[in-house]
Amino acid sequence: MKSDVEIAQEAHMIHIEEVASQLGITQDDLELYGKYKGKVSLQTWENIKTRPDGKLVLVTAINPTAAGEGKTTTTVGLGDALHQIGKKVAIALREPSLGPCFGMKGGAAGGGYAQVVPMEDINLHFTGDFHAITTAHNLLAAIIDNHIHQGNELGLDPRRITWRRVIDLNERSLRSIICGLGGKINGIPRESGFDITVASEMMAILCLASDLDDMKARIGKIIIGYTYGNEPITAEALHVTGALTLLFKDAIKPNLVQTLEHTPAFVHGGPFANIAHGCNSVMATKFALKLADICVTEAGFGADLGAEKFLDIKCRFAGIKPDAVVIVATVRALKMHGGVPKTELVGENMPALEKGLANLTKHIENMQKFGLPAIVAINAFPTDSSQELEFVRQKCVELGAEVALSEVWAKGSQGGIELAQKVLAACEQPGNFNYLYDVNASIKDKIATIAREIYGAEGVSYTPQAEKTIKELTALGFDKTPICMAKTQYSLSDDMTQLGRPTGFTITVREIRVAAGAGFLVALTGEVMTMPGLPKRPAAEKMDIDNVGKIVGLF
Amino acid sequence: MKSDVEIAQEAHMIHIEEVASQLGITQDDLELYGKYKGKVSLQTWENIKTRPDGKLVLVTAINPTAAGEGKTTTTVGLGDALHQIGKKVAIALREPSLGPCFGMKGGAAGGGYAQVVPMEDINLHFTGDFHAITTAHNLLAAIIDNHIHQGNELGLDPRRITWRRVIDLNERSLRSIICGLGGKINGIPRESGFDITVASEMMAILCLASDLDDMKARIGKIIIGYTYGNEPITAEALHVTGALTLLFKDAIKPNLVQTLEHTPAFVHGGPFANIAHGCNSVMATKFALKLADICVTEAGFGADLGAEKFLDIKCRFAGIKPDAVVIVATVRALKMHGGVPKTELVGENMPALEKGLANLTKHIENMQKFGLPAIVAINAFPTDSSQELEFVRQKCVELGAEVALSEVWAKGSQGGIELAQKVLAACEQPGNFNYLYDVNASIKDKIATIAREIYGAEGVSYTPQAEKTIKELTALGFDKTPICMAKTQYSLSDDMTQLGRPTGFTITVREIRVAAGAGFLVALTGEVMTMPGLPKRPAAEKMDIDNVGKIVGLF
Repeated sequence: MKSDVEIAQEAHMIHIEEVASQLGITQDDLELYGKYKGKVSLQTWENIKTRPDGKLVLVTAINPTAAGEGKTTTTVGLGDALHQIGKKVAIALREPSLGPCFGMKGGAAGGGYAQVVPMEDINLHFTGDFHAITTAHNLLAAIIDNHIHQGNELGLDPRRITWRRVIDLNERSLRSIICGLGGKINGIPRESGFDITVASEMMAILCLASDLDDMKARIGKIIIGYTYGNEPITAEALHVTGALTLLFKDAIKPNLVQTLEHTPAFVHGGPFANIAHGCNSVMATKFALKLADICVTEAGFGADLGAEKFLDIKCRFAGIKPDAVVIVATVRALKMHGGVPKTELVGENMPALEKGLANLTKHIENMQKFGLPAIVAINAFPTDSSQELEFVRQKCVELGAEVALSEVWAKGSQGGIELAQKVLAACEQPGNFNYLYDVNASIKDKIATIAREIYGAEGVSYTPQAEKTIKELTALGFDKTPICMAKTQYSLSDDMTQLGRPTGFTITVREIRVAAGAGFLVALTGEVMTMPGLPKRPAAEKMDIDNVGKIVGLF
Repeated sequence: MKSDVEIAQEAHMIHIEEVASQLGITQDDLELYGKYKGKVSLQTWENIKTRPDGKLVLVTAINPTAAGEGKTTTTVGLGDALHQIGKKVAIALREPSLGPCFGMKGGAAGGGYAQVVPMEDINLHFTGDFHAITTAHNLLAAIIDNHIHQGNELGLDPRRITWRRVIDLNERSLRSIICGLGGKINGIPRESGFDITVASEMMAILCLASDLDDMKARIGKIIIGYTYGNEPITAEALHVTGALTLLFKDAIKPNLVQTLEHTPAFVHGGPFANIAHGCNSVMATKFALKLADICVTEAGFGADLGAEKFLDIKCRFAGIKPDAVVIVATVRALKMHGGVPKTELVGENMPALEKGLANLTKHIENMQKFGLPAIVAINAFPTDSSQELEFVRQKCVELGAEVALSEVWAKGSQGGIELAQKVLAACEQPGNFNYLYDVNASIKDKIATIAREIYGAEGVSYTPQAEKTIKELTALGFDKTPICMAKTQYSLSDDMTQLGRPTGFTITVREIRVAAGAGFLVALTGEVMTMPGLPKRPAAEKMDIDNVGKIVGLF
């Protein structure tokens, strides 16, 4: 069996100008990065912004398991299938981070015959967007420490600097550091630390901004810490919002690449799906909606986190709404939700499947609460029995969801035609989309609504720290924003071991953080890791490049 | 008077494909980064490598003063002037670092009417080369800490990890840190710190490598620290040289841009000129020599550091040699070398000029020791008197050096025609180039030769630490390499207050470091700062960008 990178390297790519021309993007509107990558100019927006939007299809998934579900692969394959049957399609995806690439994952751009290419470039630096985020984030950190070092006019409390640093690598050793050591010339000793770049508020801002002015305004609102007098201090007070914004002069432009089948794909931005909203940039999605008849996009993690935030945060800020939602599942993963360990997934197991299916049906119900038609895509494995597949189909149909088998990993677009047709049919239904909560409700009301309606929790408890922060943020006027839930992706609850459809649980909110630039509050339940570590044998050990630039070990 | 960024923004740039075609670089050989930047493919080298080299002109300078000397401006202007008189020229320059851009300098790509463009892009991310270096450097650091965390099979002594971390910003607070805090899951607490990216050995390697295989071999030789048993451990032992090298798959390709007058300019790599060799990449220079009839390049700092290392390190590794050396000086700077403070430079001052001129004449003598013809370029200021200029001219001619007034800052190529003609004449002289020292001599012999012949020192003393390291490195077989001197750039001596041509001094070598991947030893005299700090009012505060991407505040 060929690896993803082998399939990608064998692909015949067409010039990105040809891909762009499918969407009516001219040479003048496209800034080339080599022959197979481009950025669409900001000027393009001026020419297209009054057009009607195309259809928007969101691809989400059940709660992820170790068995994998293939969400990005399905997104790409669905886009290819729609392209294959003659639709003017644009896919919109997140950019992968270098950290997981060298850690566990070894690359992330779809898989098998449903990939975006050039996958080596997309996985390695790409067009430099993440480096721009890293640089802007850390420049602000440097400016903060310099401000304190140079006299601290603003009276910043060095113990209450909330703006950490970032690096686009898996680096457990930098999670918690003391900086400023070595005497007076090296600044003020204080505790600090690094998160991975995708966890930066700058990333969330890039992905929610509508243009450079909006970006600058949002950057200015970032709260970087507090004074000795407990007043929040914003980036604006440090006089560098212009400098920070100009670091994004190219990063803000959506990147265009192609699938193995030459379907146009915007790959732009990639915020964490826990402490951020987990979707590609608003600009990429809006460009796709204006330029194509149908845009297929994805959200991070399972539907309880990714889809909920896509709908309640991204759609709200961007003024867009989906026409249909695809929920990706595998029979294997459903059996894991039913309690089967990964090593025992081979062979039919109807009781486990029935039990685990409850995870999928909950997500279907959830999408229906948003007023959206749901289509279940069963990402096919050779080990799935026909009885298992039929059982899943029947249960979904009972709930009013369409079901289609997806074989895009093995067959490309040909494996996604049924799915594509069901998606198109769903898009023709009259829309009935609504947000889950009123953004002007209280912080606790909004969290309670999400926990009850989406997770199926019986209630929400708050640590004293969280209670205190809610009072403070409400007093500061930061309560009228969407809530970004940070929760384990593995369970509908906040306990990662509770698979399937847990009941009778409560959610504990440990901490509330304000992302005033991004424009949301983050409610953290349980421990949320914002800086991954490397495994004992990092994926980096298997990677190599020869003298003519051919790469192995990305997969 | 217009600022540099205003002049640059008013420039009419031609498409980079047109610039490339001047050098016979085809569309197939050029990877575009927008319309005005490109990378030349590695494949190009295969087609040109057997061609004869063009002429090589090195631009260097007197020891820098606060008055400035305009070395990059002169390099660009000389290239433009040669282009103007019909020569097939390629300029080769270093890439600027983001740190100084946001700190003091606000940009670095020449000045006035002798600039490379697009200056905003060159100063901000450019084609991502420095970000690739930062990432590779820090991935190696992460792998090291992960190795220790995961059981430390190699027996690395956490107190003797010599591989620090880097960031391409001015960040005094990260110079000295303790990482790995917060308990067992966050690794091993130990002292570490960040240097600026240009100080990374990865940068020196990128700039000395001849291809990807050479790059990988050099990366493998990097010494990252020592075991408890005092054995050096290389990057090779960590099994990630392939992964580290593939991060450079694009960064290794020389970048092509243009001057305001459309002269082709390679801008590639930018190592520190103290703890590294301070020149643009070998690949850029070699491409320029094969593609053009004449290549004009520069070296960092004054000729005592930059030119000496260009000649003894870069030329030695690359197998190239210059045909002429241009030494840039200003009358103002020479008067500062003669003891005049910056505030009192207006007005003729012949005694100070005569005294300060000794700095210039020493550099002329030094270049003659390498067997190279020297041309002095007097970077003209309106305040220079004709008597002052004539005095400089006469003294230089007495030493056998040609002199030309350069007015390229104000006039572009028209201000450099005389200089260009004198450079061309010098290039026609028969070459007599020799290295200053035998690379197989002992470490102390090599340092003594540089100190005596180039700096004019009476001797060299060593701290006990340096003595010890020299013995250890000699025993390990690392003594047969060039020496990279790290010394203040402001004086020929190791005391930055000794201007002009100091005599009767000795040089103190405090520390020797091995850069086994780059292939040289670094001899540190005095304190060498490898991480700058930000000033009280960083240049970043003056920068801004509007909604259509127009930038102000770079200068």
